[in-house]
Amino acid sequence: MSEKTSQILPDHPEEAKMPELRREPVSGRWVIIASERAARPTDFLTNHQPAENNFCPFCEGNEEKTPPEIMAYRENGSKADSKGWRVRVVPNKFPALRTEGEQNVHGEGIYEMMNGIGVHEVIIESPRHVVSLTELGNGNIEEVLRSYRDRLLEIKKDKRFAYGLLFKNVGVAAGASLEHTHSQLIATPIVPQLVENEMERAEAFFNNSRKCIFCDMIQQEIAAEKRVVISTERFIAFTPFASRFPFEIWILPTAHGSHYENQEEGEIEELAEILKNTLVKLESVLDFPPYNFIIHSTPFNIHKSEYFHWHIEIIPRLTNIAGFEWGTGFYINPMPPEEAAEILRKK
Amino acid sequence: MSEKTSQILPDHPEEAKMPELRREPVSGRWVIIASERAARPTDFLTNHQPAENNFCPFCEGNEEKTPPEIMAYRENGSKADSKGWRVRVVPNKFPALRTEGEQNVHGEGIYEMMNGIGVHEVIIESPRHVVSLTELGNGNIEEVLRSYRDRLLEIKKDKRFAYGLLFKNVGVAAGASLEHTHSQLIATPIVPQLVENEMERAEAFFNNSRKCIFCDMIQQEIAAEKRVVISTERFIAFTPFASRFPFEIWILPTAHGSHYENQEEGEIEELAEILKNTLVKLESVLDFPPYNFIIHSTPFNIHKSEYFHWHIEIIPRLTNIAGFEWGTGFYINPMPPEEAAEILRKK
Repeated sequence: MSEKTSQILPDHPEEAKMPELRREPVSGRWVIIASERAARPTDFLTNHQPAENNFCPFCEGNEEKTPPEIMAYRENGSKADSKGWRVRVVPNKFPALRTEGEQNVHGEGIYEMMNGIGVHEVIIESPRHVVSLTELGNGNIEEVLRSYRDRLLEIKKDKRFAYGLLFKNVGVAAGASLEHTHSQLIATPIVPQLVENEMERAEAFFNNSRKCIFCDMIQQEIAAEKRVVISTERFIAFTPFASRFPFEIWILPTAHGSHYENQEEGEIEELAEILKNTLVKLESVLDFPPYNFIIHSTPFNIHKSEYFHWHIEIIPRLTNIAGFEWGTGFYINPMPPEEAAEILRKK
Repeated sequence: MSEKTSQILPDHPEEAKMPELRREPVSGRWVIIASERAARPTDFLTNHQPAENNFCPFCEGNEEKTPPEIMAYRENGSKADSKGWRVRVVPNKFPALRTEGEQNVHGEGIYEMMNGIGVHEVIIESPRHVVSLTELGNGNIEEVLRSYRDRLLEIKKDKRFAYGLLFKNVGVAAGASLEHTHSQLIATPIVPQLVENEMERAEAFFNNSRKCIFCDMIQQEIAAEKRVVISTERFIAFTPFASRFPFEIWILPTAHGSHYENQEEGEIEELAEILKNTLVKLESVLDFPPYNFIIHSTPFNIHKSEYFHWHIEIIPRLTNIAGFEWGTGFYINPMPPEEAAEILRKK
């Protein structure tokens, strides 16, 4: 936890307000909502700090500076790895995991290890040097979201891979080094621990209540209203009850669906719209903050899940993670999600 | 995961090296050791960036700028909240949790919450304006470590608290805002999820093998040698097999002990020595990096545990956490712990 506001601020009237501990029902993690530690969105402003790149390998015309493309949506007649694409997917040049080889699990005393096989791809979202997804037209964003689906459907055919994670890093503080708008896909040979934990807890909830915990949460959020940012016919964006970070936002389809890649065409169009509108609000309130978004979906080996509900988690990166978080898994969030939602709704 | 080295580096000969997935046996988390993504310690150098403070409330003579002291080691005859102290413990002026009140667990549909009761204290490690613990004499560091013990022993008498976490944030990137050397203690009304997870897994290992997993790990590390940084009669410092971060280091007592606060006097003296020597090496290799250290100990309500072994985890904060880590709990570490240990040993 950052001590940003401790010791150096003058006393103020709210000093005695009791912080609230909240539990995120899916992951089980606890969050401390300590609203007196900061109050206004301007308290969180940080530099967007786009990475400085003299040369951008993601711009149209520089196709030979990336590994050969895996897939692209292109103008008719244009050739692979040349101009004429709208969205382009390439392997990461220095991938965290490698596609060739077998898992080869082995041990060394109490230690377990395996080969780092997997997939690490970059989705270049526009041929133009644009730094935010929100600068793209709706049709362009739909194609980005379709490329996510198409890559997941392709990768899950390879039985060596257990899970595919789609995510986006924006700004240096969020881990990006290239500013040209892009996202990434990493497929792993095992189901990641965080995903497994959420699946197990969601399954336990289902076994107990015969209901999807996310469907329940959506109903409760619609009824409570106070944390809803945007709702459309088929999607809802809200600030989660136990938000880890100021202005954290989740986007979920309101009808149950376990896998991102099983969405229908009409859904993708509506998702493009709500994603763009949500990010526009976030960028407007926080002046283009660094952020990550992450798509949580069901592992490949589960054909259809009644208990897990795919969704997108958007986390602005405004506060530092410190010793307390590393030691406990608790987060301290100085911005109550109800206030964050109210501010976002007004934008 | 940062894309720091991706796309912009020229091809190099090691490009085809297979990354390795390693599992940390206590927490169960997986780490990707991707050694070709960076090679030399200088690749990780960041600014120490001490927080700029014109006025330091932690310096001797400014005692009235902090809340009244809870405890201090003082020269004979000196008064509370005045000069003459060597180590001083004060409440955090803007605490994340508050000492007054009851837990009051309650629900709202599927959501659970409780009052944020707890303890949040600051341990000021020196009356002088010193920015690193390593600038302190051994006797001074012993007193810091004794103050940790004394506060834990006192706080655990209050049955409302389940766990006490001692940690240190150094540098802005690690969450510190004041540069004057200090650490913090937060006591929580519930056992944090990360601690519970480690306890459960260590207990399962014990039930299976009748051995403490940490004792086993220590034996294995001593035999393997390659990850050991320093060993003394009663302590060992090594880079863990599944290090999340470059130059991550754990310090453990070699004889089994479940609670930090149950250490004997002679142990504290030896711990001060190995902690200082380890941090001196880290500061020398990485030019005073931002870092956190966290003491992992057994929850208050367990009198003595055969399966959990207290220890200190030191994590330099050199790389950004990005979407992949947030979505999976996986970490990508470009520095194999065996190489890190070799570099640290030579310093």
